[in-house]
Amino acid sequence: MIKSDSHPQQKVGTEFDRAMMRRCLELARRALGCTSPNPMVGAVIVKDGEIIGEGFHPRAGEPHAEVFALKAAGANARGATVYVSLEPCNHYGRTPPCSEALIAAGVAKVVVGMVDPNPLVAGGGIAKLRAAGIEVIVGVEEEACRKLNEGFIHRILYKRPLGILKYAMTLDGKIATTTGHSAWVTNQEARSVVHQVRAACDAVIVGGNTVRLDNPHLTSRQQGAHNPLRIVMSRSLNLPAQAHLWNTQEAPTLVLTDVGANPVSRKMLLKQGVEVIELSPLTPEKVMAYLYDRGFCSVLWECGGTLAANAIAQGAVQKILAFIAPKIIGGSNAPTPVGDLGLTTMTEALSLERVEVRVVGADCLIEGYLPQ
Amino acid sequence: MIKSDSHPQQKVGTEFDRAMMRRCLELARRALGCTSPNPMVGAVIVKDGEIIGEGFHPRAGEPHAEVFALKAAGANARGATVYVSLEPCNHYGRTPPCSEALIAAGVAKVVVGMVDPNPLVAGGGIAKLRAAGIEVIVGVEEEACRKLNEGFIHRILYKRPLGILKYAMTLDGKIATTTGHSAWVTNQEARSVVHQVRAACDAVIVGGNTVRLDNPHLTSRQQGAHNPLRIVMSRSLNLPAQAHLWNTQEAPTLVLTDVGANPVSRKMLLKQGVEVIELSPLTPEKVMAYLYDRGFCSVLWECGGTLAANAIAQGAVQKILAFIAPKIIGGSNAPTPVGDLGLTTMTEALSLERVEVRVVGADCLIEGYLPQ
Repeated sequence: MIKSDSHPQQKVGTEFDRAMMRRCLELARRALGCTSPNPMVGAVIVKDGEIIGEGFHPRAGEPHAEVFALKAAGANARGATVYVSLEPCNHYGRTPPCSEALIAAGVAKVVVGMVDPNPLVAGGGIAKLRAAGIEVIVGVEEEACRKLNEGFIHRILYKRPLGILKYAMTLDGKIATTTGHSAWVTNQEARSVVHQVRAACDAVIVGGNTVRLDNPHLTSRQQGAHNPLRIVMSRSLNLPAQAHLWNTQEAPTLVLTDVGANPVSRKMLLKQGVEVIELSPLTPEKVMAYLYDRGFCSVLWECGGTLAANAIAQGAVQKILAFIAPKIIGGSNAPTPVGDLGLTTMTEALSLERVEVRVVGADCLIEGYLPQ
Repeated sequence: MIKSDSHPQQKVGTEFDRAMMRRCLELARRALGCTSPNPMVGAVIVKDGEIIGEGFHPRAGEPHAEVFALKAAGANARGATVYVSLEPCNHYGRTPPCSEALIAAGVAKVVVGMVDPNPLVAGGGIAKLRAAGIEVIVGVEEEACRKLNEGFIHRILYKRPLGILKYAMTLDGKIATTTGHSAWVTNQEARSVVHQVRAACDAVIVGGNTVRLDNPHLTSRQQGAHNPLRIVMSRSLNLPAQAHLWNTQEAPTLVLTDVGANPVSRKMLLKQGVEVIELSPLTPEKVMAYLYDRGFCSVLWECGGTLAANAIAQGAVQKILAFIAPKIIGGSNAPTPVGDLGLTTMTEALSLERVEVRVVGADCLIEGYLPQ
């Protein structure tokens, strides 16, 4: 991986600390896509250089990572060091505060990956621990901790899920041929990365046109992996009677439409187990507000250029994942990834930040963040 | 630099041999863009681990690299090792054969980067040296030697210059906004790389539309660097009276047009020192045949999508240099790098070979070769 704007990374903690924090992240990732509206968190307890307890937060409503790790360590936790990827909570929710559990267990030291992203509570758990005489180190592998929970962080800060626009285009900028044919732009390796991205997201959104043209599955394809909620935005409900997305045995599907749209189509969808929700107006902005209320942290836009442009224009996209296949298809009227944004001079272009370029098999992945 | 299909490279010669060959390439590059129809060649003579002579081929009609190096070494060349990036010639041309000069100088060993690309004469110079009792090693830094002279090699093998299509596009596949504005897609670093590429090419081609819309300079912008012949393909000769390209003090310009096109425009161009040539039909294929006859090794296509598609369809492009800026401009009708190729399914796409991905400043460069 190449970072075009890489800066010398600040290294906090010892090499052992960082290795233990990476283990926390590994544990946290076991619940990939399953914890929203909560973050993914992992915890490791170490005594005399040996791991004596591990845990991760499996899903909202279940105990936090530290609780599982403390339980595994038992009485041994006294005098031990606890590694945890996110600042221990300090409030009474569905579970008592982890800060108190750690104090009660008599741990000597807590190593924290990142502080709580909520500015109103950030640092509270750490202060409580320090007040109890526990040594606390903060910011070990912080960048990786933030990256893992970027959706959760965005949700907390902006009260919206993180919107990720993903597309696959040829080296000459086309997402399909002039006739709309698009299977496949990229190779298997790139498609596997897309499956992993889906597994990490709470929802994936397409427009009606993608259903009609591509009949996609939009699943994460891996045994045991989380599948996102598959969402179709369709004002008209002019949708095919048969589609992979209506097979709700494979994964749940939600169709978002405008108030009072095509009742026959609606009945057809409901009969197949598809959820249908009316939103007015049916816009990307409204959809993201709705998905925030539903508890989602990250939403993947896998739509065509017109809906993608609307989503960008309405602030429903923060991150771009562009897969580029080194092939030329041509076509003056072939569809491209992003439709009209109303920009007329090149200087108005939206420049991505924190850009990373990766080679994925025979293809290239460029990712970055739209300016806030 | 990342090679997506990298294979373990066969290493020929010692580390010292490879360092000397890289020095030959460095010397050869001093004549970048100036040697056509000849190749760029560098030579180094070493005795007792010290360089005693160096040379490079400056331009067609002047002596070969070995001759300059032998002259520099003088009588010291006896018993020395000669490094040369291309097999020494073995025929009487404008200069006597280098193979004979090396034998006459009494050198002990010759290390060759690559054999002559012309299959009819390949190996002849090497055989002559070996027959004279000189030790010869072949293939040291061969890949770099071939890369430096890829235009020359293509010229010899296919009797056409190598065609390179270069474009700069946004991450959403556009080379300009919907209104045609394109200054600038990429950053300064990427544009500097383009200037270096121009310095290495014999000609750069655009269509009339690029002149009308962008009024480009198409020079290599560097003090002392070679400028390519700037070529405009214009069937109509409907060209502006004033344009940077008509400033032939800066660099020479050639307008290629169809027989009998607009005589007023023709006169306007000739008066400003622009060369005007009529080709019928005015097609990329015909243009490349003409530029071959003119002795060119490499031609850079910097045109818009329509001409680019014609050039690809007619086999006038072998290599693609795609600069990708991590920015989003949008536009359903914004121009893209390659127009209609008549391909309707994604499986028909032209897959590039030998693909390399580089980060250039804030931008990304993907280069590769069209299938032969």
